[in-house]
Amino acid sequence: MTVEELVRALNDAVARDEREAIAERAAELNPADVADFIQQVRPELEVELLMALPLEKRAETFGYLSLQMQQQIASRLPPDALTAMVTKMPSDERADLFKVLDDAIRRRLFTRLARKEREDLRRLASYEEGTAGALMTSDYASVSAGLSVAAALETLRLTAPDKETIYQAFVLDQDHRLQGVISLRQLILAVPSAKVDDLMERDVVAADVKAPQEEVARLISRYDLLALPILNSDNTLVGIVTYDDAMDVAEAEATEDMHKGATVGRLETSLRDASPLSLYRSRVHWLVVLVFGNIFTGAGIAFFEETISAHIALLFFMPLLVASAGNAGAQSATLMVRGLATGDVTARDWGKLLGREILVAGALGLTMAATVMIVGIFRVGLDIALVVALTMVLVVMVGSLIGMGLPFLLDRLKFDPATASTPLITTIADVSGVMIYFGLATVLLGL
Amino acid sequence: MTVEELVRALNDAVARDEREAIAERAAELNPADVADFIQQVRPELEVELLMALPLEKRAETFGYLSLQMQQQIASRLPPDALTAMVTKMPSDERADLFKVLDDAIRRRLFTRLARKEREDLRRLASYEEGTAGALMTSDYASVSAGLSVAAALETLRLTAPDKETIYQAFVLDQDHRLQGVISLRQLILAVPSAKVDDLMERDVVAADVKAPQEEVARLISRYDLLALPILNSDNTLVGIVTYDDAMDVAEAEATEDMHKGATVGRLETSLRDASPLSLYRSRVHWLVVLVFGNIFTGAGIAFFEETISAHIALLFFMPLLVASAGNAGAQSATLMVRGLATGDVTARDWGKLLGREILVAGALGLTMAATVMIVGIFRVGLDIALVVALTMVLVVMVGSLIGMGLPFLLDRLKFDPATASTPLITTIADVSGVMIYFGLATVLLGL
Repeated sequence: MTVEELVRALNDAVARDEREAIAERAAELNPADVADFIQQVRPELEVELLMALPLEKRAETFGYLSLQMQQQIASRLPPDALTAMVTKMPSDERADLFKVLDDAIRRRLFTRLARKEREDLRRLASYEEGTAGALMTSDYASVSAGLSVAAALETLRLTAPDKETIYQAFVLDQDHRLQGVISLRQLILAVPSAKVDDLMERDVVAADVKAPQEEVARLISRYDLLALPILNSDNTLVGIVTYDDAMDVAEAEATEDMHKGATVGRLETSLRDASPLSLYRSRVHWLVVLVFGNIFTGAGIAFFEETISAHIALLFFMPLLVASAGNAGAQSATLMVRGLATGDVTARDWGKLLGREILVAGALGLTMAATVMIVGIFRVGLDIALVVALTMVLVVMVGSLIGMGLPFLLDRLKFDPATASTPLITTIADVSGVMIYFGLATVLLGL
Repeated sequence: MTVEELVRALNDAVARDEREAIAERAAELNPADVADFIQQVRPELEVELLMALPLEKRAETFGYLSLQMQQQIASRLPPDALTAMVTKMPSDERADLFKVLDDAIRRRLFTRLARKEREDLRRLASYEEGTAGALMTSDYASVSAGLSVAAALETLRLTAPDKETIYQAFVLDQDHRLQGVISLRQLILAVPSAKVDDLMERDVVAADVKAPQEEVARLISRYDLLALPILNSDNTLVGIVTYDDAMDVAEAEATEDMHKGATVGRLETSLRDASPLSLYRSRVHWLVVLVFGNIFTGAGIAFFEETISAHIALLFFMPLLVASAGNAGAQSATLMVRGLATGDVTARDWGKLLGREILVAGALGLTMAATVMIVGIFRVGLDIALVVALTMVLVVMVGSLIGMGLPFLLDRLKFDPATASTPLITTIADVSGVMIYFGLATVLLGL
């Protein structure tokens, strides 16, 4: 059966309230799909569906639920069931859950966990959000330096059930310092009597526990890693981040950058679940700030009131000119912001890119000037059409250069380049466009 | 040594032209880093650096180079060296290289490859760009249904050197149809005499060979897969896509969506390497289209010339009002486009989201109207300030609803929602804003 068919069958079973069929269908579905299903059923069924799953799968499914839903369900599960499930969760997901649990439930659950898990929770909770430490899991597979391949394989076999992955084993000395990494592939292909130390990779790509999570995701993607080891300042291994978590971080970062590009602030939940209030909050800030920016454009128009009154036809081209400057600027800014975010361009490329931008923007400006000349000559005569065409070349170039330069400048000043959002660039381009246009007109039309 | 130190040491060796030191340093670096280094040295050194690496690492490093660079280097490598390296490349990277090779080199290389590789190349080359088929590798690990765990492990050991990953083994029947999947973890934990069929997962997440690559990436990310099996229409296994390729696709898709959001077309190369001409081409199309959109706004102003002449003060608020409509619209459009791209919202959520959008946009409009009233009363008197405030509420709502609705509409009409770019939304908001503003003013100020 396909996922859709299984979901439909599960839906039918739920509608007819057939306990056994519900449990059977849910067991056939992938944990990610069960979680999606649970997010959509009526509240009484959430716990029932979850409890219908075998323990391992229940813990895995629970991890796919939104944190908000996890918190709600945790408060309704019997204490024993909650403890059993939480014990089976990967350490990073468990730490995330603990951060959102109600105080009473958290305290009760905490005392029921084994000492090892309690210490682990305390440690993971101590890392700042957005760092490697907050992202990592401590369920990594490790072997001692000096072991034979056979002994290392035996270690992995014995410890496998609790590990996030056993495909990368980290080789540690007595002080828990990272000496190297060996893959399960290498181990099963090697002669059993060979030494781990002779086979392992010693130049290990690793990240500091305080590194930002975007850097962690970037390293995993750049080096195609299954798991990135996370080290303390004294080089001891404290955790790993696996590729699937890196994918989630990369997606969340791309979403945040896109939202920033349209002056939308950080949303704590998914868009579908966002409350009107949280959406309002994420959007109102910059909109109001930009009101003040746009008042400058109005002031620019007021300044040139005489010119406009004398040549009211100038006004017809104003929206076109300022919009073109803004559009060209938005293009440049978006290219740069994304280029800086992916590491495709760096601050050092500044000079080379500036030259190219002048060339490209000049060519774009000329093309658009030619387009507008054709329209302009028929509508307003040659003199105004020439002013419009010349303005077009200038504003497209100015807009593009602002769009290209601002992200670099912000990056240099240690701000997020994505702050150079399209509406901000457009606002700056508007003011510049109005000044250039009416300024030129005043001079060239001899007012 | 850190990567930076190694790169510096390699740079020194290159500067002093010390062959041995170059080879030694390059061998210590990660393939991704060597590739980066090669992209930056002078052309004569490119081949030398690559040939200084051991064969396996050379093939891997080569795969990290841009296709353009791969094509250049391939034309300069001795035929034997090229054949040896290409034989060691993963099948998907080899197929990509073949698409860009010069005809003569491609033909010569093709005849030198083994028959199995030639057939593989022909098959992989037959899939359309952007599909699962063009993304997948045929170097997957498989075991026959019915084997014991010990026999399956032995199969994996024997075939491992040519496989992209052996951590997921695909269980096939005699006709090469996919029966299930078993992980290396399950295999090494199981009793050697157990049967693969009893252990394997039968509900396998898979994709059709013609599926778009974004869907492949989404499945891998959603189900946290190491490798996604790709099936022909008759359910036979033709390849796999691994998580690292899915990461690259997701990053490229996010970049493309961001560029589209600012009306930048597809760039074939990275931003750093893009030629001025290719940048011009990617940007000019929409800029010119939008010129015509903006001419409507000018026509709108011309239509209301009398109103404007009578109350020139109205003009001061025009940039602010149309920009606010555009900014609010850009926010809504960006939220929706990204939400649809990540699958966070779907077309079915339309009704629920519309109600919420009206609420949020109304609140935003009121907030901004209040802000502008404060400025307006002092500058232009109560009557015009009231017109401005009322217009603000309306244009923010209209802009937001266009921004929210257009991506949905495009999606429904099977267009890419990202076509609802910020400049397009802004242009539509501009026209609507001018009409609403001066229309309201004409009515309310009794002209």
